[in-house]
Amino acid sequence: MLVDLTTEQQWIETVKQLTDERLIIGDDCAILPDRWLITTDMLVEGNHFVLGKIGLVDIGWKAAAVNLSDIAAMAAVPSFAVVSLGLPSGFSHDEFKLLYSGIVECARAFRTRIVGGDLTRSDKLVISVAVIGRSEETKPMIRTAAQPGDCLIATGDFGASAAGLWLILSGTDGYEYCRSRHLRPHPRVDDGLLLGKLTGGEGALMDASDGLADAVMQIARGSKVAIEIDEECIPVHADTRAAAELGGQSPYDLALYGGEDYELVAAVRPEHWKLIEQATGNFQLIGRVVEGQGANLLRDGKRVAKLEAEKTFQHWLSN
Amino acid sequence: MLVDLTTEQQWIETVKQLTDERLIIGDDCAILPDRWLITTDMLVEGNHFVLGKIGLVDIGWKAAAVNLSDIAAMAAVPSFAVVSLGLPSGFSHDEFKLLYSGIVECARAFRTRIVGGDLTRSDKLVISVAVIGRSEETKPMIRTAAQPGDCLIATGDFGASAAGLWLILSGTDGYEYCRSRHLRPHPRVDDGLLLGKLTGGEGALMDASDGLADAVMQIARGSKVAIEIDEECIPVHADTRAAAELGGQSPYDLALYGGEDYELVAAVRPEHWKLIEQATGNFQLIGRVVEGQGANLLRDGKRVAKLEAEKTFQHWLSN
Repeated sequence: MLVDLTTEQQWIETVKQLTDERLIIGDDCAILPDRWLITTDMLVEGNHFVLGKIGLVDIGWKAAAVNLSDIAAMAAVPSFAVVSLGLPSGFSHDEFKLLYSGIVECARAFRTRIVGGDLTRSDKLVISVAVIGRSEETKPMIRTAAQPGDCLIATGDFGASAAGLWLILSGTDGYEYCRSRHLRPHPRVDDGLLLGKLTGGEGALMDASDGLADAVMQIARGSKVAIEIDEECIPVHADTRAAAELGGQSPYDLALYGGEDYELVAAVRPEHWKLIEQATGNFQLIGRVVEGQGANLLRDGKRVAKLEAEKTFQHWLSN
Repeated sequence: MLVDLTTEQQWIETVKQLTDERLIIGDDCAILPDRWLITTDMLVEGNHFVLGKIGLVDIGWKAAAVNLSDIAAMAAVPSFAVVSLGLPSGFSHDEFKLLYSGIVECARAFRTRIVGGDLTRSDKLVISVAVIGRSEETKPMIRTAAQPGDCLIATGDFGASAAGLWLILSGTDGYEYCRSRHLRPHPRVDDGLLLGKLTGGEGALMDASDGLADAVMQIARGSKVAIEIDEECIPVHADTRAAAELGGQSPYDLALYGGEDYELVAAVRPEHWKLIEQATGNFQLIGRVVEGQGANLLRDGKRVAKLEAEKTFQHWLSN
């Protein structure tokens, strides 16, 4: 993100004004004709990763994964990718092969073909990927289509990636689960497709790339509804809890504001939730959509906190 | 480009091996299903432009233009673009507006919609654009389809952009034509479309982003033919000649190796050249395709030089 979420939202508004594309800009992907979709994400050394702390193959994997997750977040199938690389002057051919093989490995794992790109020089390593996907349903799932009465559901668990990043940067051993969740995020492509199929594209969907709280707040704001999350229902892995304790962090803060888990968060009609629950154990019910605005955290059915954009993790390691 | 053309070709070979996409990688765009095409190009501060020497609106325009030129180079219509920006920490909202308005201005001029993107932080300004286009003919024009007997033709004139860059960097006044050719390159979208229509997609086409010599060498190598250029037929603007003289440069070296002119270079069947000549004055005959390999420069019908990859201008201002 750009400094913080508030600044980013403001600058995205400027982009909407300048391009006059208010309807199409602001979701995980842009919707094109013939059910095609496109997304792009750029990773920058010192901001999204620290060279030497994370291997080049993992950096490559992640650059592909974050884009594929945006396609998953529209319940679509990723098809093709292009990759632009800015490479520092000392970058060797062998290092290039490691980086690129990570990109290819992730793309292949999700049946995506890398069909082109650009190579250029830059001071710091920069990886910009664009992915094209296609919706299998007549309409892709967007983040602004939640309705009061919807069930709030999510894949996987939260906070593990932020815990993994802390473990890596602090040089703390153990907790392999968190580490691998940070280094090798798995975009939820198959879960997104299943969701699209079972809902027929009804409901709201996005990925939790900037944390569970951000996803919930964006669905609430975009859909002009309020969302309640039940704290006891937020899935947090045992390793994440243990690592959080070791680091003196609240596991729920990591889950809500840590980011980079690349799980799916959706608001679906109750009748669709029944179908989803029968079809897969990959989604869990974590809250509900109600009339109103804003996003709140509930403990034992009572509101204990309002979710805040300011707390969201900043992809900004170097300053 | 990456350091030099030889290194770049070697690394692109690595990409082809790793992705197993030998057929689709290496042209101006990748060819997708349903006549869709995609291309991406990244501009990096210090490499492709120097902040303070070139205005932000012009930098934005150029970032869009270089990508649109790749679509033109396949005789296709640009449709949609996504824009990823890496912005330095001091970059203000006003500077952002200037940069983005340049991108939008160029995209609009060529009927392209900016539908999404990414904003992030980086040490140096980085602009990565991906453009999707569509071929109006059943097949887009590629660079590997030249045949002996073809006429070598090109739009516009060459060397002006390199002369413009020299004028800007050296602080030399005058020669507005060269300056504007460098700052505001016009992708040859309409000429590319006309060429596709009149040839039915037969023949070879690419843009001369890395100079006339590079374009000719790539068409020759990709098509397994030899190409001869007649020096006296290479179009060079009077301002380019005058600026070259002032800078102690050969205008033909600027034209052949200077790069960034974003003109189209094509090898077309003689019967198609007649149609093109009748339809527009925008293309000129500059040489021919013959049996053999390599690319040669002829003066008064006699070979005076072999074109060399090593002489090609390097987008590498900062070191």
